[in-house]
Amino acid sequence: MADFTTLGAKELQGLKAELEKRYSAFQSRNLSLDMTRGKPSSQQLDLSLGMLDCFTKEQFKANDGTDCRNYGILDGIPEAKKLFAEYLEVTPDDIIIGGNSSLQLMYDTIISAMVHGVVDSDVPWGKLPKVKFLCPTPGYDRHFAVCESMQIEMINIELGDNGPDMDTIEKLVEGDDLIKGMWCVPKYSNPTGITYSNDTVDRLAKMRTKAKDFKLFWDNAYTVHHLTDKRIELKNILTACTEAGNSERPLIFGSTSKISFAGAGIAMIAGSKNNIDFRKKHIFFQTIGSDKLNQLRHVKFFKDLQGIENHMKKHAALLKPKFDAVQDVLNKELAGKNIASWSNPDGGYFVSLDTMDNCAKAVVDMAANGGTKLTPAGATFPYGKDPRDRNIRISPSLPSVEDIKLAMELVGICVQLMSISKLMK
Amino acid sequence: MADFTTLGAKELQGLKAELEKRYSAFQSRNLSLDMTRGKPSSQQLDLSLGMLDCFTKEQFKANDGTDCRNYGILDGIPEAKKLFAEYLEVTPDDIIIGGNSSLQLMYDTIISAMVHGVVDSDVPWGKLPKVKFLCPTPGYDRHFAVCESMQIEMINIELGDNGPDMDTIEKLVEGDDLIKGMWCVPKYSNPTGITYSNDTVDRLAKMRTKAKDFKLFWDNAYTVHHLTDKRIELKNILTACTEAGNSERPLIFGSTSKISFAGAGIAMIAGSKNNIDFRKKHIFFQTIGSDKLNQLRHVKFFKDLQGIENHMKKHAALLKPKFDAVQDVLNKELAGKNIASWSNPDGGYFVSLDTMDNCAKAVVDMAANGGTKLTPAGATFPYGKDPRDRNIRISPSLPSVEDIKLAMELVGICVQLMSISKLMK
Repeated sequence: MADFTTLGAKELQGLKAELEKRYSAFQSRNLSLDMTRGKPSSQQLDLSLGMLDCFTKEQFKANDGTDCRNYGILDGIPEAKKLFAEYLEVTPDDIIIGGNSSLQLMYDTIISAMVHGVVDSDVPWGKLPKVKFLCPTPGYDRHFAVCESMQIEMINIELGDNGPDMDTIEKLVEGDDLIKGMWCVPKYSNPTGITYSNDTVDRLAKMRTKAKDFKLFWDNAYTVHHLTDKRIELKNILTACTEAGNSERPLIFGSTSKISFAGAGIAMIAGSKNNIDFRKKHIFFQTIGSDKLNQLRHVKFFKDLQGIENHMKKHAALLKPKFDAVQDVLNKELAGKNIASWSNPDGGYFVSLDTMDNCAKAVVDMAANGGTKLTPAGATFPYGKDPRDRNIRISPSLPSVEDIKLAMELVGICVQLMSISKLMK
Repeated sequence: MADFTTLGAKELQGLKAELEKRYSAFQSRNLSLDMTRGKPSSQQLDLSLGMLDCFTKEQFKANDGTDCRNYGILDGIPEAKKLFAEYLEVTPDDIIIGGNSSLQLMYDTIISAMVHGVVDSDVPWGKLPKVKFLCPTPGYDRHFAVCESMQIEMINIELGDNGPDMDTIEKLVEGDDLIKGMWCVPKYSNPTGITYSNDTVDRLAKMRTKAKDFKLFWDNAYTVHHLTDKRIELKNILTACTEAGNSERPLIFGSTSKISFAGAGIAMIAGSKNNIDFRKKHIFFQTIGSDKLNQLRHVKFFKDLQGIENHMKKHAALLKPKFDAVQDVLNKELAGKNIASWSNPDGGYFVSLDTMDNCAKAVVDMAANGGTKLTPAGATFPYGKDPRDRNIRISPSLPSVEDIKLAMELVGICVQLMSISKLMK
């Protein structure tokens, strides 16, 4: 297809008329499609149904004899710590198994830092005039929302194919001791799908930070969430930081939300023994311990890391055709037109679509009027503000392949129309 | 038996020799009994085993069609809100269903108050020079530990048969705007077993507090936890406060930890719509929502409030003989000797034993050396300091009746020996 930016007004006008006809046809169908959220489909949830009836009488004891129905064990039953330590590539001493939400573990860590500081703080973060976090963008809106709720100032960092812009990061953290943290989704990043390169991991591990209590919030949410047979490797951040003499730097988070049940999985936090001991010291005041029956359910169902990996292949079999549908339609509608670019991830839950500047919000609105809800434009940036107004996060996991094809066709039409409108100005 | 305080030195000496012989006999048995913790017994946990296999395929949908396995619903599925609103005597709009721990809901509410304030705060509590809480004593160590972890100053308030000393409370809260909260276990109190009288509830609801954002932390942990057929009624604190024009005053907490599974139950927070909306606003940043499958499990298993009440009769049938054993042995060992008093509760999980002043710590140590672990003396007071060193919390739920009899006999011996030692000084 022709590069739109090389076309004259008349040609653009002709294309516009055609596209408007197609858009009207969509409107008259009164569709109600939803591509907003990275929710697993019910077919994916069905994959873990065996977890709901894996207990029989007397099988609710943990390996160490603990009755998982009763109180006790702050940091998780031994077999859950073992399995998910392997999952996050740490040792069982370096992990805490939490409740059903890794977001909660992150939020709790940060609110605790505001009141008590982190393991190597001189003062609680809340006592400082200001706290700042580095936020690779586009990124995960819930991370940014946590910062916003605590009045933590967020600094956008451009996210490239190999990770965030390390030159900028190194300069910033070396010069400003109020920069206390950085959000990272290091593998199959939300939403662009990129994985941090070894060099990026090494530089994050080694960089000099003016704040001695700087923390990497390493949200390894998609570590086994491959879409293809390719196995993208992420360098171990704890090992890299430890080798660089910065073992307290990373706080690693994970969960089974997109492995077992999105609303009833288990979440975990890992890091150096000092970090984990410090969190345990504070979590002790917060709870007697997380739901051990759910921990046991997960271990009984998955058995080991190989069990998790086998299970993830079933997820991939359901997800891949949906991601392929997104690519097929975007290619058909937008390829070669020089008006948009998009990711084609090897894993994770999202496709990231960049329109021409200042078009994303209009595209999302237009798609909504045409019958397809998308994640609000700007959601992938701190404060909901995409400075170039061009990024749209596409979540193909929940709808059917047929619905995705329809929705993406509509999105393609909207992107073209808004691009033409911009080019004709 | 004779009043020890009327006996002469020779008589006391004679008793002492007998008791020491009995104590030595205990020591030579090398017992290892544990009366430290309010944990349900495995027989009690067995009562809820049906909850573990109450799902069959397609039964994981909530009433409103929500797939409980997936993300969503911040404040709980409708049927869980309905059931536990009834349980806590509020409306379904006035409740949030949390995770497995009411302690966590309390901790989260207080740490959030430190950073953000509560619904009617002018400034976050953490920005004040100091925050103080009133702590009826003896009380629950975990409440006090939360305050201690936040550097909240605790003020002891004597707990009587009808509730805490209201004259003192009214005077304190009217005069000091740094008093921001008060811990209450209003029914079958931990550890004394008393229930706040209607008059106490009314006075707490009506009292003038200098802090306009004063909060009652109303931990209604034992509302259906009767030991007998007697039904002690607790006046509804939310209604009382609302009638007094102080509807934002109470934050009500509950859980099924001692109804279903201690480690895998569900917890809840209730209060005025303003309070609950404010909490929801903050919890939104913390989590996508609590484990809805576990909520559904509870509703499927208990069905309604009558189901919970029927279930609690089964708990009572297991617990009552244990509480009776405590009374029998304490009566046999200590009654009429004017050296100790203890509660005989109609519900809850504890018996509260008061020795002569300055004897509790010594009794607990001596019992430990004789083969029975008790809750550390002082644990029922803020900072672990019982000013009269006389209160011992006894937890009869976990051990067998036989073990309880042995343990209480040993405790009786230790109390007598320490009393004699004190009287002979």
